[in-house]
Amino acid sequence: MKTEYADSFITSVVSTFDTMLGCDLRHGEAFTKDGRQPELDVSGVIGLSGKIKGMLVLSLSREAALSAAEALLGERPEEIDADVADIVGELANVIAGVVKGELADLELCLGLPTVITGKGHAVGFPRGTTPTCIPFESDWGSITAEVELAEHTTDAFDTTN
Amino acid sequence: MKTEYADSFITSVVSTFDTMLGCDLRHGEAFTKDGRQPELDVSGVIGLSGKIKGMLVLSLSREAALSAAEALLGERPEEIDADVADIVGELANVIAGVVKGELADLELCLGLPTVITGKGHAVGFPRGTTPTCIPFESDWGSITAEVELAEHTTDAFDTTN
Repeated sequence: MKTEYADSFITSVVSTFDTMLGCDLRHGEAFTKDGRQPELDVSGVIGLSGKIKGMLVLSLSREAALSAAEALLGERPEEIDADVADIVGELANVIAGVVKGELADLELCLGLPTVITGKGHAVGFPRGTTPTCIPFESDWGSITAEVELAEHTTDAFDTTN
Repeated sequence: MKTEYADSFITSVVSTFDTMLGCDLRHGEAFTKDGRQPELDVSGVIGLSGKIKGMLVLSLSREAALSAAEALLGERPEEIDADVADIVGELANVIAGVVKGELADLELCLGLPTVITGKGHAVGFPRGTTPTCIPFESDWGSITAEVELAEHTTDAFDTTN
């Protein structure tokens, strides 16, 4: 994925966590995801399409998700419940919305966010794509954005556009 | 979600499994998903957007995923590896593409498919939506499509369109 796109996701994640949650994120070095790591606790997933097609997977450790919920709700949930899931989905939605604005030339539209829960789940992207994994650290623990914006192609994994 | 949309997903799933895999699916009664069940083994996830926004989550049991891979590859993988994940993603992609054609008035564009692995993961949709869960049975075991196509709204979970 183009560095410009990855940079847009980095700034969007950082600004969204700052604005919505008052949480200061420090991003590590983005790298091309290879394989099915990392294993995740809760992930907000949202599709993007337009002149390009993509997916954002925003994953929070259990601790980070509970802390984010506490920041918004005023009390800390004991587990990753429906409230926490909704917040993670909303975070993914807002981040993708900021990216849509920043990369206006791509005329992105957003799908509906969904949230994956289940300890140790992993996300795979299609072969032939070069998804970027961006690690963030915070006082709440680790947060990861996995993202790809890929050109429309006609390979086997992409037969419909 | 409108019954018309659910029907389109049902026919698309059945025809895709028939055409691509030679697998005969029998669909159970579609119902509005409430909560975070069922627990899943491997899920192909793809966003849709256009005049409406949505997400398709196509989930296969471990047995069904391995059998689908065997049908395409000619030999049965021993575990849910990268080949199996790619096939599940491709199935979701093709099904969404068929729906895009069937519901042409919605001018849907597809995001990039991704695949979630991890035994016992679950998928949640935003509050205020009415996702439909469609169970299918086959000789390979259970397959589930969870899907929502929602109007653009301005509620808290949908701030960006």
